[in-house]
Amino acid sequence: MDREGTRRLLRQVRSGKLSVDDALDRLPRGGVAADLGFATLDLHRAERRGFPEVVYGPGKTSDQILKIVDRLHRAGQTVLVTRVGRDVHETVSARHRGAEYHELAHMVTLRTRSRGARARRGIVVISAGTSDIPIAEEAAVTAEIMGNLVERIYDVGVAGLHRLIAHRKILLGARVIVAVAGMEGALPSVVAGLTACPVIGVPTSVGYGAGSGGQAALLGMLNSCASGLTVVNIDNGFGAGYAAAVINRGGRKKGN
Amino acid sequence: MDREGTRRLLRQVRSGKLSVDDALDRLPRGGVAADLGFATLDLHRAERRGFPEVVYGPGKTSDQILKIVDRLHRAGQTVLVTRVGRDVHETVSARHRGAEYHELAHMVTLRTRSRGARARRGIVVISAGTSDIPIAEEAAVTAEIMGNLVERIYDVGVAGLHRLIAHRKILLGARVIVAVAGMEGALPSVVAGLTACPVIGVPTSVGYGAGSGGQAALLGMLNSCASGLTVVNIDNGFGAGYAAAVINRGGRKKGN
Amino acid sequence: MDREGTRRLLRQVRSGKLSVDDALDRLPRGGVAADLGFATLDLHRAERRGFPEVVYGPGKTSDQILKIVDRLHRAGQTVLVTRVGRDVHETVSARHRGAEYHELAHMVTLRTRSRGARARRGIVVISAGTSDIPIAEEAAVTAEIMGNLVERIYDVGVAGLHRLIAHRKILLGARVIVAVAGMEGALPSVVAGLTACPVIGVPTSVGYGAGSGGQAALLGMLNSCASGLTVVNIDNGFGAGYAAAVINRGGRKKGN
Amino acid sequence: MDREGTRRLLRQVRSGKLSVDDALDRLPRGGVAADLGFATLDLHRAERRGFPEVVYGPGKTSDQILKIVDRLHRAGQTVLVTRVGRDVHETVSARHRGAEYHELAHMVTLRTRSRGARARRGIVVISAGTSDIPIAEEAAVTAEIMGNLVERIYDVGVAGLHRLIAHRKILLGARVIVAVAGMEGALPSVVAGLTACPVIGVPTSVGYGAGSGGQAALLGMLNSCASGLTVVNIDNGFGAGYAAAVINRGGRKKGN
Amino acid sequence: MDREGTRRLLRQVRSGKLSVDDALDRLPRGGVAADLGFATLDLHRAERRGFPEVVYGPGKTSDQILKIVDRLHRAGQTVLVTRVGRDVHETVSARHRGAEYHELAHMVTLRTRSRGARARRGIVVISAGTSDIPIAEEAAVTAEIMGNLVERIYDVGVAGLHRLIAHRKILLGARVIVAVAGMEGALPSVVAGLTACPVIGVPTSVGYGAGSGGQAALLGMLNSCASGLTVVNIDNGFGAGYAAAVINRGGRKKGN
Amino acid sequence: MDREGTRRLLRQVRSGKLSVDDALDRLPRGGVAADLGFATLDLHRAERRGFPEVVYGPGKTSDQILKIVDRLHRAGQTVLVTRVGRDVHETVSARHRGAEYHELAHMVTLRTRSRGARARRGIVVISAGTSDIPIAEEAAVTAEIMGNLVERIYDVGVAGLHRLIAHRKILLGARVIVAVAGMEGALPSVVAGLTACPVIGVPTSVGYGAGSGGQAALLGMLNSCASGLTVVNIDNGFGAGYAAAVINRGGRKKGN
Amino acid sequence: MDREGTRRLLRQVRSGKLSVDDALDRLPRGGVAADLGFATLDLHRAERRGFPEVVYGPGKTSDQILKIVDRLHRAGQTVLVTRVGRDVHETVSARHRGAEYHELAHMVTLRTRSRGARARRGIVVISAGTSDIPIAEEAAVTAEIMGNLVERIYDVGVAGLHRLIAHRKILLGARVIVAVAGMEGALPSVVAGLTACPVIGVPTSVGYGAGSGGQAALLGMLNSCASGLTVVNIDNGFGAGYAAAVINRGGRKKGN
Amino acid sequence: MDREGTRRLLRQVRSGKLSVDDALDRLPRGGVAADLGFATLDLHRAERRGFPEVVYGPGKTSDQILKIVDRLHRAGQTVLVTRVGRDVHETVSARHRGAEYHELAHMVTLRTRSRGARARRGIVVISAGTSDIPIAEEAAVTAEIMGNLVERIYDVGVAGLHRLIAHRKILLGARVIVAVAGMEGALPSVVAGLTACPVIGVPTSVGYGAGSGGQAALLGMLNSCASGLTVVNIDNGFGAGYAAAVINRGGRKKGN
Repeated sequence: MDREGTRRLLRQVRSGKLSVDDALDRLPRGGVAADLGFATLDLHRAERRGFPEVVYGPGKTSDQILKIVDRLHRAGQTVLVTRVGRDVHETVSARHRGAEYHELAHMVTLRTRSRGARARRGIVVISAGTSDIPIAEEAAVTAEIMGNLVERIYDVGVAGLHRLIAHRKILLGARVIVAVAGMEGALPSVVAGLTACPVIGVPTSVGYGAGSGGQAALLGMLNSCASGLTVVNIDNGFGAGYAAAVINRGGRKKGN
Repeated sequence: MDREGTRRLLRQVRSGKLSVDDALDRLPRGGVAADLGFATLDLHRAERRGFPEVVYGPGKTSDQILKIVDRLHRAGQTVLVTRVGRDVHETVSARHRGAEYHELAHMVTLRTRSRGARARRGIVVISAGTSDIPIAEEAAVTAEIMGNLVERIYDVGVAGLHRLIAHRKILLGARVIVAVAGMEGALPSVVAGLTACPVIGVPTSVGYGAGSGGQAALLGMLNSCASGLTVVNIDNGFGAGYAAAVINRGGRKKGN
Repeated sequence: MDREGTRRLLRQVRSGKLSVDDALDRLPRGGVAADLGFATLDLHRAERRGFPEVVYGPGKTSDQILKIVDRLHRAGQTVLVTRVGRDVHETVSARHRGAEYHELAHMVTLRTRSRGARARRGIVVISAGTSDIPIAEEAAVTAEIMGNLVERIYDVGVAGLHRLIAHRKILLGARVIVAVAGMEGALPSVVAGLTACPVIGVPTSVGYGAGSGGQAALLGMLNSCASGLTVVNIDNGFGAGYAAAVINRGGRKKGN
Repeated sequence: MDREGTRRLLRQVRSGKLSVDDALDRLPRGGVAADLGFATLDLHRAERRGFPEVVYGPGKTSDQILKIVDRLHRAGQTVLVTRVGRDVHETVSARHRGAEYHELAHMVTLRTRSRGARARRGIVVISAGTSDIPIAEEAAVTAEIMGNLVERIYDVGVAGLHRLIAHRKILLGARVIVAVAGMEGALPSVVAGLTACPVIGVPTSVGYGAGSGGQAALLGMLNSCASGLTVVNIDNGFGAGYAAAVINRGGRKKGN
Repeated sequence: MDREGTRRLLRQVRSGKLSVDDALDRLPRGGVAADLGFATLDLHRAERRGFPEVVYGPGKTSDQILKIVDRLHRAGQTVLVTRVGRDVHETVSARHRGAEYHELAHMVTLRTRSRGARARRGIVVISAGTSDIPIAEEAAVTAEIMGNLVERIYDVGVAGLHRLIAHRKILLGARVIVAVAGMEGALPSVVAGLTACPVIGVPTSVGYGAGSGGQAALLGMLNSCASGLTVVNIDNGFGAGYAAAVINRGGRKKGN
Repeated sequence: MDREGTRRLLRQVRSGKLSVDDALDRLPRGGVAADLGFATLDLHRAERRGFPEVVYGPGKTSDQILKIVDRLHRAGQTVLVTRVGRDVHETVSARHRGAEYHELAHMVTLRTRSRGARARRGIVVISAGTSDIPIAEEAAVTAEIMGNLVERIYDVGVAGLHRLIAHRKILLGARVIVAVAGMEGALPSVVAGLTACPVIGVPTSVGYGAGSGGQAALLGMLNSCASGLTVVNIDNGFGAGYAAAVINRGGRKKGN
Repeated sequence: MDREGTRRLLRQVRSGKLSVDDALDRLPRGGVAADLGFATLDLHRAERRGFPEVVYGPGKTSDQILKIVDRLHRAGQTVLVTRVGRDVHETVSARHRGAEYHELAHMVTLRTRSRGARARRGIVVISAGTSDIPIAEEAAVTAEIMGNLVERIYDVGVAGLHRLIAHRKILLGARVIVAVAGMEGALPSVVAGLTACPVIGVPTSVGYGAGSGGQAALLGMLNSCASGLTVVNIDNGFGAGYAAAVINRGGRKKGN
Repeated sequence: MDREGTRRLLRQVRSGKLSVDDALDRLPRGGVAADLGFATLDLHRAERRGFPEVVYGPGKTSDQILKIVDRLHRAGQTVLVTRVGRDVHETVSARHRGAEYHELAHMVTLRTRSRGARARRGIVVISAGTSDIPIAEEAAVTAEIMGNLVERIYDVGVAGLHRLIAHRKILLGARVIVAVAGMEGALPSVVAGLTACPVIGVPTSVGYGAGSGGQAALLGMLNSCASGLTVVNIDNGFGAGYAAAVINRGGRKKGN
């Protein structure tokens, strides 16, 4: 129940249309949730957090995802489904023509009709290796669906620093940078050491042996000697793109 | 060597005042560094990153710290020394009257004279328990020395959610929130679920048994179901405060 | 050998029907066990613990499971087989018409005929996400076969607290709550902070990256700032449901 | 703000004494919290959870603890301070004559005057070794201050099973058992295998080498082959005693 | 080069048939090794350790294994191949009629013709659960091929102690016991607490969640409160059977 | 209650001196235990396991240890106290003149008077480095108090194999070898590769960096390519010495 | 941009052909990089490091690898592709006849035409077991493509030291040794203890149970008691072969 | 026993002065070892490995160290004692005037008199931070005592790359580089990416939180994207200095 709903209820109490005890029972329920049986959609989230609930794909059937997409779309909300294959896109796009599939990012998006706002500039997504691209794309597509223009710089790891430095101009112009790296994960440290804007490190599970699965990269970023680097979980491109978008809108809920 | 210095050097090359080979030798050195023997100060950092090099206290003697402070101060830079005791403050303030000691945060600060700029609003530091306060203070003092006004909300962990919700208004007004928590580290998730601005989670080493030393809190924050939460290392209040200040200045190097 | 058997034996000793040495050899074997070659069934367990031995499915063939079910059923005991697929149910139900399959929980149950007792109220199973439902169902079905009515509340994680609070009435009415959550596992802490009854946390292996496989959720629950939360192993819905049933019968072996 | 407070507020709204907007601002604050600066006491907890907020000692000064005790005692609440030394007791008892120190459990307790209720029977605390006694006592004292009579059985580990079996009668009569063990932590499994009531395992940090610090004991209990065992964190005797007390009152908030 | 070879060489030196320098070059090579290109067989091992080199199957092709078996058999040595499927047995038995396959243990054995010695009594292999049987069989078959009669007691875990105690007579008669257990791995502790002979614990990878893959069982056995328990690696039934056979022959190289 | 006690009880039942119900109550208590309040001594252990209960020193006061020693000595049992300092020896020897202190092993021993039996030969304790000597001595003293003559070979690690090989004769003559090593823990593998008798590896906590605290040594020994090596926990010299003594007596309870 | 390119650019600045500002923009980009969209090739690496960029196969399609090979080959660089199957070789060799496939090492190589230099002697690759051969071959093939003759000694683990010692002459003649071992990883320690040249340890993921996946071998090598052993990551034969080649050329960039 | 000793022995056999059997017993002892009771010195090591046995200080008394130094010095060997305080130096220098103490490196050295050889150039030791200096000094002093001139570059971590690049000339002139870094340990990767000579990474235990104690730095270096980096254990400056010296002498045992 949002602020307006609560206001209405309180007016009903004042007017006597609603008993105190009945109001008492209803009040704690502070939001709007749609119960689909297997899922309780948080339709209030766009209002509260500036972007609707995002659908995490793994462990859900195409059919369940379709039902969730239907419900979110009907509520006029932008839809973002993460970590799904082409098959999910086919199921969704059969009913919703506008649904797009992002091959590298493994995401389905479905925009609302009335998006007139211009995309915001300022986000750069940079990755250390070719194998890190899917996670970098997850970050980039997330930021894009949230209303941003994203610049991409890929495969510029620290084993050849000149490749990174060649892009210094873009980096210095950024308002927030998402730096994606597997193996030893040193790229975000080096990027943060060169720039003044917020840098979000994304460790990826690229690599093998001790520290593989992203452990070395994650620990490296957490221990970065470059002040002010913040980090998301291994392979969490979505989270980094989301945080970048939130930072880039300057703390305001709506991006316009 | 910064852009201006390079421009000067290139002009000298053009004018013939500097030979090509001499320029060749000097060019790769891209900055300004002060060599103290035991430390190589990065005096260029304020220019590059928007804030000077910060002095990490552990493993340095009072005397070494004093020498570093002297050199930074002489260069007209704001000084921040982290994780030091009263003794270090005594050594430093004997020479620099303006040096302040922050008891809870274990920090020494020494501001430059000419700070006319008004402090920026928008940062909230919130902590879960009484034992998390020193780390929360480390974040708050860092953000303050970087030119921010900081609001503090302490001891409002999730075992009594009403204490948190009582402060909802402050949280909704924030432009960036630093959420500090030990034990299961659930506070940042809950805060991020309620607000639209960037939230930085700081796990603390408060707790005992399995997952102690901050492991449970760190892993909890990395696995948060609240989108867009970013994280710093365990007990790294400084890093969180730094990142918050960088986010709060909106990507610009200078805070005006 | 149970208490009655021992009494009989001792009477035989007193009457001289059994020599002291023969009794000596028999006495230490304190129970009733059925040896199937590949398994030694603890038929005494229902007597001793209030519920028969449960069949853990993984690593056993359909044929082995059928033989165990036969033997338990012949002994008049309720049968519960965990973590099995439809194929096991088909094998079992071909001989035992009453065998039920619980799709989501991956369990087969076979009740005894003479169950006149009314199901006990008081157990609530609550889960954080859609992906946690199979483990939640494992807990719920276990509690049901042990004679309880179970209320289910699914997909009400802490990223949208209002969804949880909407169900506060049910939670306050519970005598024992099983709270199931993956990722950061904060749900049981929040639930325990709101209620006065025993809460059992079940971490699930939902999630990815550092702390995945349920580690973050488990450590979070073990470090909960909500007093009195107890925990079972990752994905152990069965154990939580069993413990809830034992707590709900108030310490008495039989549920009447 | 508790239910009564909310009722009053709603009545004021109905009567027009309070405007809708003013009520709107106040409503979300759902409890009663006392702000001491360094701590925000959850005075509502006894109402909500059946027992007041407990004071976790480590990281707090004697003076801070005294202030918290004062405030809780003034609110008519039973006081329990965990993990403190004799010095804290001396500070507290100087002002509160009734404060008791529990040497082995490292706890300070201060009861309210009007406790007429009879202590409840049914809780047994059992420990594997002599070194586990402090943690066992922490559990026992916690359960006692919460209104229970506790039976203790100490140093009966599985290396000599007959010592355990000698106490079978007491175990079979229990309504809930707290089983405390370090090293391999097998005691709770064996106890749960012999009895029908709820068993809470408490791993302790007794031992050395691989798995020391309680890891082996914790993992052993989480992997117990005895169904229905639940576990608390390493050395968390307090949590186990609290859970046992909650289970023993049968889900009711007040134990009478 | 074995002792006899060295003796011959030294005699050649004394008789002048071999120069000192030539002897010098040959002497350090202290054994007999057969180089197959992909493997260097230690044919001297039977002489040195009392049993020939054992063939670890994983990572070797059927063809490679056949070549090794050929070479060992030609050298008159007993052959034991571990962790292989039926296909390897088919390849081997096509050439060596006497090769046997041990289904549960996943082993191929090929005995030498002239085995007149009587099998030694004294080894008991005991396992906690049905799922532990393959590892228990690996231990049993290993001990058997090394010349022992093995008694097996399966599925007698600590959740029903009476099942174990029913076999006390056999346990008390053993000269060495191999105790196999997954999950919490408490069986070896309990067995060692009841008997006076050497007990070798074998943790198995049976179980799930925290401590799975045998970690909980291994740590439990390493931390056993029963003195004198020794342990092998997780699922290493072969190593335990080998050690039991070595212990049972009383330190002598040949068991007669 | 041992076999004789049970026999007497059963005779009393037959003769009618004891009622069936009274016997019923007493029977399950299968041993002899001395309750000291803080400890329940297992006086039956010498009978059952071939050596009395050993006193683990850490976490016990000198006074508690003295009481335990008194009780064991009074029962005519050999006393072994592990991991204690000189102060404990002083307390004990003040009452028991015969108590010895073993400086390097940090052990107190007190023998029974009537030990006529000759010490058994056959145990060798070998250590890799000088820093491993305390743990090696713990093993050696344990084996000695259990009736063995022990040969010691110290500081012969694998970085200089010739030092080890120089002692080959002693190793080949052993009936059981305890091999103690920190750092990479390769010594037991090499020793086991050279000999035919049982080898027990003891990892020590000597070393630093990754794998320190004995982890590298323990994992190395568990993964040994030398068949039949068994292992005890890190720094558990006592356990290795105990196991060696049990193996050396050839499975018989008494060493004569 | 290499030193020569920079010299040219500076000359253009001096001569006035290039403006200062244009030079300014170009200068920071210190190398030569080829952007393929999905990859940014570091064509300057051969100049800088003495060997071209190596193509890590996993996560790249055959088509992507072909494009990279094309580009490197066109630039006149030796091509090394690691961790790929026969299918990649087929794709590459369809266009580049000279491409070779190294079956055991899973590598594709493509040499430049004009390689007249003689291969350098001095590198020995030694492995402990048959299962370690693929990683050993990865090291050997890497060193060969970098211009070395490599001697191989396989399957000579420490369980039979005489096999190793038989090859002492080759080891003593080496200038650098790569020692490959799984399980407890003791081979490099023993080899380093016998020789005076640099030894590089390569732990492999051969083994099972605790410490499997190469952890035990890695930790063992890191804790080696043999001074001067250096280590690469688990299964990183490529890295060890590369380091060996770099060491064997004596610090000079070109091996002639 | 070294080659000469063996030659003598074999000559005695040929001449008949020694019986074959006596020679047989002596031969396997392949070296020269001095038994001090608590230590078995490997006096043959200088001959075999090119540098004498080094004394690891921790866990040895000043008196034990003095005895070892005496014995090594008497044998004409260079002495290096690691990880000791000033007190050890005082004890040693009281007898050996030439003993030096290296304050930062915590080492004592004692050179032999006749050192005429000129120190070799080519080793550079570089460290990331001021706190890494003690470990860097351990490496440098080790390389110096082994006959090298060492260039030191300290406090040039990757947060300010220009500091590192300013020293590029020295790095490019090195024959082997030891790169020391704590925290995220990225320095060795960046250094290896810039140079062609062998680079040895030394992770240090500098840092805090997750990955502290050197874990993050170690894993980062093991996962370096810069080919050919090799690594030693955390804080093992000695091992890195030793390996650098061995590499710098080009594989020859003696450095001339």
